Amino acid sequence: MEFIVNKDCFKQAISEVSKAISVKTSFPIMSGIKITASVDHLILVGSNSDIVIEKIIPLAISGVQMLKVIETGSSVIPAKYFSEIVKKLPGDIHVKINAKQMVTLQSGEIFTTLHAFQSDEYPSLPQIDESRFLKILCTELIEMIKQTAFAVAKNESKPVLTGVHLSFKENHLFCAATDSHRLALKEVTIDSSVTGSFIVPSTSLAEIIKLLSDETGYVHIFLSDYYIVFKLNSISLFSRVIEGSFPNVSGLLPTEARTIATFDRSNLLKGIDRAILFASEWKNKNVNLEINDGMKLRISSNSSEIGKIEEYQNIQEITGETEVSISLDGTFLMDALRAIKEDKVMLSFGGSMRPVLIEPVGNASYKQLISPVRT
Amino acid sequence: MEFIVNKDCFKQAISEVSKAISVKTSFPIMSGIKITASVDHLILVGSNSDIVIEKIIPLAISGVQMLKVIETGSSVIPAKYFSEIVKKLPGDIHVKINAKQMVTLQSGEIFTTLHAFQSDEYPSLPQIDESRFLKILCTELIEMIKQTAFAVAKNESKPVLTGVHLSFKENHLFCAATDSHRLALKEVTIDSSVTGSFIVPSTSLAEIIKLLSDETGYVHIFLSDYYIVFKLNSISLFSRVIEGSFPNVSGLLPTEARTIATFDRSNLLKGIDRAILFASEWKNKNVNLEINDGMKLRISSNSSEIGKIEEYQNIQEITGETEVSISLDGTFLMDALRAIKEDKVMLSFGGSMRPVLIEPVGNASYKQLISPVRT
Repeated sequence: MEFIVNKDCFKQAISEVSKAISVKTSFPIMSGIKITASVDHLILVGSNSDIVIEKIIPLAISGVQMLKVIETGSSVIPAKYFSEIVKKLPGDIHVKINAKQMVTLQSGEIFTTLHAFQSDEYPSLPQIDESRFLKILCTELIEMIKQTAFAVAKNESKPVLTGVHLSFKENHLFCAATDSHRLALKEVTIDSSVTGSFIVPSTSLAEIIKLLSDETGYVHIFLSDYYIVFKLNSISLFSRVIEGSFPNVSGLLPTEARTIATFDRSNLLKGIDRAILFASEWKNKNVNLEINDGMKLRISSNSSEIGKIEEYQNIQEITGETEVSISLDGTFLMDALRAIKEDKVMLSFGGSMRPVLIEPVGNASYKQLISPVRT
Repeated sequence: MEFIVNKDCFKQAISEVSKAISVKTSFPIMSGIKITASVDHLILVGSNSDIVIEKIIPLAISGVQMLKVIETGSSVIPAKYFSEIVKKLPGDIHVKINAKQMVTLQSGEIFTTLHAFQSDEYPSLPQIDESRFLKILCTELIEMIKQTAFAVAKNESKPVLTGVHLSFKENHLFCAATDSHRLALKEVTIDSSVTGSFIVPSTSLAEIIKLLSDETGYVHIFLSDYYIVFKLNSISLFSRVIEGSFPNVSGLLPTEARTIATFDRSNLLKGIDRAILFASEWKNKNVNLEINDGMKLRISSNSSEIGKIEEYQNIQEITGETEVSISLDGTFLMDALRAIKEDKVMLSFGGSMRPVLIEPVGNASYKQLISPVRT
């Protein structure tokens, strides 16, 4: 294998596929990046047990030459040092591998040699079923992930809850995440007749966000039994799906409320952020919400060690009973309020032991539920 | 004690004095900020065993009211939560302490209460001898610290080497730092007849840099037997000095060289930065420098695990012998090159076992020495 590649393009590709590589792995070859040089492109692959990221470097981008392949072939190069040295080389990089799996990288008068692995021991990529796919705007996919993935279970005792449930029905994608104390539900309209449902690990979705954060345009999603593949331009992310069945969470949404009150989202978020400082010694970061006269919301918290806080915020609108008293996990409430983009937020209370429904005002496609904590 | 203070001004002052407060301290009161309200100003003090930072908030700054003192007095408030809550309050803060040392902070409709300490248990500030002082431009002081403090000893086995030696003589300030493997010497012209010498902990100097990084104008330095005080506008930093005598390091500078060669500083720094990647398994981060024909510098390093690197850089000028071969600690050489501002750097070699003298071309006030490592 021998090729000359543009430094910035190579650096970017290495950085992208490196996101899938674990520093700690029991298999040394998995700490490497597999590079395959074909006559008209270079393929870089990085992977761990959950995800595989593949990046293609073509011969030219927008008419500017990026790559010249002198000899085809493949090799697996340890990612850590490879990535660091490529960052520090000044210009085009001439990569060459010899029969002893020694890779030389030359840039100007700089010559480096790295030990590499035989590529035939590297696992092959999962097959994609090209017929079963849909497309979604990059920005919509990212918003959907940001509005649900935070609510997954952080511990592994129920594996299905560590992922986001994606359910595809005629022109609709329903996303759900829950850790059994809170729930986030988001509905997106898509232009596809694909059906099926998949539980995608939240860690894979976090990588998707990093890879696509600066991108625009459509992401293609390919579905198969064990893998879901996200593909945009020259980059593909394969994620395993979590086996098992996801609980039927939409049935948990309350159909009626004792009190519905509307608040300024930003002010409410700031108030909870302050109250949480005094909730640090509580396991559930208890923050108390109270309405006494239908005019003001009282937010309070206290700590025997530090001190206490109480504040009053205006209620913009209220219907139903004008007395409310409930304790919520302040971090959950902050996550919920941060995930909403709209300025106004509506909280529906069903009683001090009933979950609170949180919705942006004027947007029925996003609903969250938080269970109260005992004081 | 009772006062109303501008939030941003108070936040800034708390942040500045907090720099002196250790999270871990055996004396709970030392985790607090001492606040003293006088009729016409507020004094905040934070301290640890090495430094004390004092900040004064006047009634008004540039004609804008900052402070209104309702009742004089003092208290010590736990820094961590005090600092966090003040950051999160929206406007002017009304601070009031009751007889039970409960501090209430009120801002709009937000009421918080924190437990505080009796201020009479807080140690009093060292006395300043107002007659023995000098002044130096803030930018010059910062440059001087940045050009020397990195070279101090990181372990405490010889306490005097953990500080920077400041030696004041008629209109001159000489600064020296060494860990016995490398040495940095800097001379600054000052307008003062103060004499004396002091070893200032590098940790105190690091705080000085943080406090003064955005400042201009003159810093006043007050000298006493056990303390050195840096004072600029409304802020003062008291640092203990390290007792003991500093070695006579200026005698270590070589008076002659076998080879003197000039390089582009930035290119040399980049070359060492690359070579160091392959020196990670060596205790001393060995990087080899070689000149064979008087035309090129060869920089190389190798690792049995990772691989190897070699590169060639142009020599701009060379006098003396045209053959050089030496191994240096790459991190020391990078520190040395980073501390120099000038574009060109001159290295004087006295042989493979002799220290290398490093100087910016055209600036005789700054000299560094690095001892070679055995290969």
